[in-house]
Parts: sequence; structure tokens; C-alpha cells
Amino acid sequence: MNYPSIHLENVINEFSKLPGVGNRTALRFALYLLDEDERTSEQLAESIRKMRSEIKLCKHCFSVSDTEECEVCRDTHRNHSLVCVVENIRDVMAIENTNSYNGVYHVLGGVISPVDGIGAGDIKIKELVERIAKEDIEEIILALPTTMEGDTTCFYINKMVKDMDVKVSAIARGVSIGDNIEYTDEVTLSRSILNRLPFDKIYGR
Amino acid sequence: MNYPSIHLENVINEFSKLPGVGNRTALRFALYLLDEDERTSEQLAESIRKMRSEIKLCKHCFSVSDTEECEVCRDTHRNHSLVCVVENIRDVMAIENTNSYNGVYHVLGGVISPVDGIGAGDIKIKELVERIAKEDIEEIILALPTTMEGDTTCFYINKMVKDMDVKVSAIARGVSIGDNIEYTDEVTLSRSILNRLPFDKIYGR
Repeated sequence: MNYPSIHLENVINEFSKLPGVGNRTALRFALYLLDEDERTSEQLAESIRKMRSEIKLCKHCFSVSDTEECEVCRDTHRNHSLVCVVENIRDVMAIENTNSYNGVYHVLGGVISPVDGIGAGDIKIKELVERIAKEDIEEIILALPTTMEGDTTCFYINKMVKDMDVKVSAIARGVSIGDNIEYTDEVTLSRSILNRLPFDKIYGR
Repeated sequence: MNYPSIHLENVINEFSKLPGVGNRTALRFALYLLDEDERTSEQLAESIRKMRSEIKLCKHCFSVSDTEECEVCRDTHRNHSLVCVVENIRDVMAIENTNSYNGVYHVLGGVISPVDGIGAGDIKIKELVERIAKEDIEEIILALPTTMEGDTTCFYINKMVKDMDVKVSAIARGVSIGDNIEYTDEVTLSRSILNRLPFDKIYGR
């Protein structure tokens, strides 16, 4: 399609890079912004820019944060000897939303996926092992997606830490196979944390 | 939902103002931008800001343009005595895409809709009448949505110009009733322009 303005075309190109956004949706976004007050565009642009430049990864758990140390890691009322290992911050938000977990997190930033070229060195597994060696951690809960990649990552982590003084558990299989953590309803997710079982029981060795 | 960062929350709030975007989609957009290079965010923010501040409305037809006068109005090969009256620039783009129209446009910027508080004075009808009085216009083609509001607007415009020396036609009813111009397939839309009929034949008076 030909656009009557190069600026409009640029916005449409940029918007359609977003996941699930095609040219038509991008055009709809652009025309909405043109219809609205200039402040709406200004605020959207500013918030995007600010988020990207200001947001930090927590130095302990690699969750996103406005400070060096995230809110969860700073909270002294939480159980810092219990670490929930998740794929990404959407999972942290989903678990936080259940209001049934009082430990801290470790965000891997992905799972091992040879197909996508993601190996163990590309995600924060080394950092997790270092945390276990350095901090006083009693138990890690593996809350990774119940997919081939998630399982592979679980096995790998279990192998890396099995000689260390830490209990390894995995969230209960209330989460249906093939689903991602973030889309699970809160009751199932909450129960799967409460009913966690030792690694060997879950993975049947 | 609680977000771990105020900057993330701001972006999600701003994104979810866009049409059809809820909190979950907004979060997906935000996390995509966090995963990508900082340049992706920078370019998106810059293109939004630039579009909103640089884009102009053509002084003749009120279509969007990068210059005072849009490309269509500047084109001396087009028939400037034939004016197609449309609701918005999406309609201009849709008609331009058919490659079967050689006249110029007049973008009303809306249709009369008392329910939404949009009266005849809120859209560019006065400017259309002034154009007809001032310029050498032989015919206007009403290409407004075939809805109650579109029809109301057609009747109103016809009433305003009926004592002037201009032919009023409307696009043929190949466009199905209740549909908007922009979603019509190109063949139907192209045919509806070729088969246009005088106002009275279309509106059956």
C-alpha cells in the first residue's frame, strides 16, 4: 500500500515490528495517534524511551527493576533461602499475582532450546549455581514451562546442582503439558507451587 | 496486576490506550522492546514523535501530507474538477489502491453522528462548500460509509450544494450496507466508483 506521508509510513513500519501487529493494525494505531491530542503521542514515545533506558535487571535475580536490587530481593520479610527459577519476568508477575509464594526468584531469561540456538551458556544458569554456592539457599523450585525445552533446562539445572547442598523441587504437574506458566489460571498455578515434589518424583527417575 | 517497574507500568498504560490493545498485549509489546536492541525502542519512539509533530493536513483536501499541499492535489495530471468526498484518510488510501480513480479528494474527518456528538460543523463540510464555490469543480462523488451516519451526511451535503453548479453523485451500492469503505475489496470498490449514479437515483427520491 502507498502511504500519503513518509512519517506515517515510518510509524507503520516501526509498529508492525511489534509481535502480532500487521500493517493494518499499525495503520490503525497511527491514525488513532493522529486523531488524539499531541500529548498522547508524546507520552507514548517518552514512556517507551524511558523504559528502555531506565529499566535495570536486578543484580541478584535478573528480574526487571527500577533499582539495582529488585523489590522482591530487597524485601526482608520474604524467605531468601527459597528460590523459584523461572523463564522470564512474565512468570514472576504471574506467580506474584497468586499471592501464595513468599520466596525469591531467579530469572533465567530463556530456556535451553537448541532449535533456537539457545544453549545453557546463553541463560543465567551459571549465575544460579553461583548464587547457590554463595548464598544460604535451602531449596530451588523449578517453575519452567512444561515443554521439551523447559524439561531439558530442568534436567540440566538438576545435574549442575546435584552435588551441592540444596534441595531441588519442581512445581506440581497441575500445569497442563505444553502450556506456558504465564497463561495458567491462578488457582492451578498456586496449587502447583504448594504441591511441589522432589525433582526425582516429578521427572520419574 | 502488579508490575515490578514503574517504567514498565507506564509503557503498558500508554500502549493499552491504542485501539484493540489490552494489558496483556501491552505487556507483550513492552517485553518485546526490552528483549530487542535499544535502537528498536528508540526508532519507535522517534517515529511516533516525528509523525505527530511533522505531519500536516493538506490545505485543499485535508488528507495527511508531509507538505502544505498533498501529493494528489499537487498532481497536475489528475482531474481537479472531480472531487471524491470521504470520511477519513484510510478511505483515500483504499481508493488510491484501486488505481481506478483519477480525481482529487475531500476528507471530511468524520461523518455526522449525533450519538457521538458530531454535528455538521465538526467535519469539513463548510470547507467543501467553499471549495465548490471557489474552485472549478464539476462533480463531487460521495464515497461515505453506507451506514445511517454516512447516509445522513450524504443528504446534508446534497442539501447544502443543490443550488450550486455542481453534479452530485454517490458511489454505486456495490458496497454492502453496514460496511465501511476501507474494508471493501478492491474490485467492488473500483466498480462502485465506475458505476456511480446521480444522487437522486442512489437515495431514491
